[in-house]
Amino acid sequence: MPLPPGRVHHVAVVVRSIDASLRLWRDLLGLELETVMEIPTDRVRIAFLGVGESKIELVEPTDETTGVARFLASKGEGFHHVCLEVDSLSDELTRLGIEGVELIDSAPRRGAEGPVAFLHPRSCGGVLVELIEAPGGPSWRALGMTPPKP
Amino acid sequence: MPLPPGRVHHVAVVVRSIDASLRLWRDLLGLELETVMEIPTDRVRIAFLGVGESKIELVEPTDETTGVARFLASKGEGFHHVCLEVDSLSDELTRLGIEGVELIDSAPRRGAEGPVAFLHPRSCGGVLVELIEAPGGPSWRALGMTPPKP
Repeated sequence: MPLPPGRVHHVAVVVRSIDASLRLWRDLLGLELETVMEIPTDRVRIAFLGVGESKIELVEPTDETTGVARFLASKGEGFHHVCLEVDSLSDELTRLGIEGVELIDSAPRRGAEGPVAFLHPRSCGGVLVELIEAPGGPSWRALGMTPPKP
Repeated sequence: MPLPPGRVHHVAVVVRSIDASLRLWRDLLGLELETVMEIPTDRVRIAFLGVGESKIELVEPTDETTGVARFLASKGEGFHHVCLEVDSLSDELTRLGIEGVELIDSAPRRGAEGPVAFLHPRSCGGVLVELIEAPGGPSWRALGMTPPKP
């Protein structure tokens, strides 16, 4: 049996403009803006807004070449993925791979908020699922990442 | 300033079959199945699976006539909406309406888990947003609903 995930870490939506989208998520719905950052390697800007133990992530493509940019061009703004927090990401990926789940990332990689891996929506009922390892898990050290101070 | 929402109450995905989808969400990802119920008035079956303070909702249309069924037919399985918990739903709806947000439900109505209202994706960057009132809020009594025992 798998260990249950601990929480919804975030729900990500693709937006044309983070600045314009803050009017809804921060100013109208009242979520707290925690951070806005550029991820040059992924050619996106992202923002995280807190709500309870979870976050809403806004993802804005910064050029036209990425999967996120093509998503925005073809489907428009909207839901992109949901991220669940697990204790040991590599254990989960091994187990899910054995069970036949199609993995976009077969091993943990460095994400903005910790070690992450994506599962293919073909295996997840059309939903792009990201897994992130809880702070202090084994992949943090393996990837040379430092958990944030609580 | 709006009061911040307390948590992501649930993330809803449209599925062809709840039974088939439980293989992913319960058996492979390890979420706890809390309930499966028919909502005859909405012509759907729904399931809630717990993850931290949130839930994943699976929504399966039971006939071909509803918006959810048309969503499934045109877009396939995938994300449907995100639901945020607020303290006073009627206060939020009044405030959001004044701010020009397009409301699908201009007043709280009875949902499976409490008083709810939907905001139109046209006002929410392509995201269908549901608001639910926290147990014990004023709309519970107004709608004759009894909060679940903790």
